[in-house]
Amino acid sequence: MKSSSPTLDSLIEALCCLPGVGRKSAQRMALYLLDKNRPGAARIAGSLTDALDKVGHCELCRNYSDNPRCPLCLSDKRDATTLCLVETPADVLAIESAGSFSGRYFVLLGHLSPIDGIGPAELGLDLLRQRLESESIEELILATNSTMEGEITAQYIADMARALNLRVSRIAHGVPVGGELEYIDSGTLSRAFSGRQSL
Amino acid sequence: MKSSSPTLDSLIEALCCLPGVGRKSAQRMALYLLDKNRPGAARIAGSLTDALDKVGHCELCRNYSDNPRCPLCLSDKRDATTLCLVETPADVLAIESAGSFSGRYFVLLGHLSPIDGIGPAELGLDLLRQRLESESIEELILATNSTMEGEITAQYIADMARALNLRVSRIAHGVPVGGELEYIDSGTLSRAFSGRQSL
Repeated sequence: MKSSSPTLDSLIEALCCLPGVGRKSAQRMALYLLDKNRPGAARIAGSLTDALDKVGHCELCRNYSDNPRCPLCLSDKRDATTLCLVETPADVLAIESAGSFSGRYFVLLGHLSPIDGIGPAELGLDLLRQRLESESIEELILATNSTMEGEITAQYIADMARALNLRVSRIAHGVPVGGELEYIDSGTLSRAFSGRQSL
Repeated sequence: MKSSSPTLDSLIEALCCLPGVGRKSAQRMALYLLDKNRPGAARIAGSLTDALDKVGHCELCRNYSDNPRCPLCLSDKRDATTLCLVETPADVLAIESAGSFSGRYFVLLGHLSPIDGIGPAELGLDLLRQRLESESIEELILATNSTMEGEITAQYIADMARALNLRVSRIAHGVPVGGELEYIDSGTLSRAFSGRQSL
C-alpha cells in the first residue's frame, strides 16, 4: 500500500530491514517517529551512521570495538589467565550481564560450518592459537552454543588447546535455574543426568 | 549492561526510541545490522534523514506529503464531492488498503482534547471549514475512531458541517466481519443492534 509520500514509503521499506519488523510494524515505527519523536529519528539516523563508521573489531578478541583494542582486553582488572570462547558479541553481553566471569574473551563471530564455507580461518583460529601460545592463558572455557555446530566447533578448538597443554573446559549444560523438569526437553534432561555432580 | 563499544551502546540506546522496542530487541537489532546487514543500516539512516528533511504536510488534507499537495489531493481520479475525515495518516493508509473509498481525505492529526490543549485550531478545523465552503464537497464522512474523544470530535465537526448544509455521515460501527458474537464486547454489540439495518 503506497502512502501519500514516496519518502515515507521508502522509510517504511527501509525499516523492514530490522529483524522481526514486518510491513505493519515498520509503518507504525515510521509514523510514530515522524509524528511524535523527530529527535529520536535523528538520533537513530546519527547513531547508525556513527556505528557503521566507527565500530570495528578488537584485534585481540574480535568483539566489537571503537578502538583497535576493546575495553575488556585493555582492562587490567580482568583475569588474563582465563579465556572464554564464544560465538557472537551478543554472547559476551549475556555473560557480562550475568557477571560471574571475570576473565577475557575470544569471539569467533560464527561457528564451523564447512557447508557455508566457514572454516578455522574465518573464525580467527590462527589468532586464537597465537594468543594461546604467547599469552599467560591457563584455562580455555568453551562457551559456544549447544547446537550441533557449536559442539563441533568446541570439540575442534578443545583438540587444538589440548595439544598446547592448556586446561580446557566446557560450560555446563542442564536444567535452567528456575526451570521445571516437567517442561524440559529430553536432550537437556539427558545432559543434566550425564553431567550430574556429586554432592 | 555496557558492551565493549560505546558507539554500539549509543546505537542500542537510540533504537530504544522505536515504539515497542525494548533494550533486548534494540540490542538484537543493532547486532544484526552491524553483523549481517550493513547496507540495510545505511539505508535506514539515509531514509530517516531524508524523511525528516522532506516529509511535510499536504496543505489541503494535512496528510504526510513530500510536496505542498499530496498525490491524493492532486489526483483527478478521486471523487471531489466526498471528503473523509480521519484522525491520523495511519487511518488513511488503512482505508486506502481496504480500497472501498475513492474520495478525498482530511486528516485531523489528532482529536479534540481540551485537557491536552488540543482545540479546533490544532486540528486545522479552520482549513476544513474553508474547504467545505469553497469546494464542491457534497458529503462529509466522519471516520474518527470510536473512542470517547473520537466521538466528541465527530460530533463537533458534524455540527459545523450541518450548519453549512452538507450531508454528514458516520462510518458504521458494529460486529467486525468474521467476528464471532460470543467474543464481541458489549459496547460493540449495543452499537451493532442500535445501528441495525432493515433488509
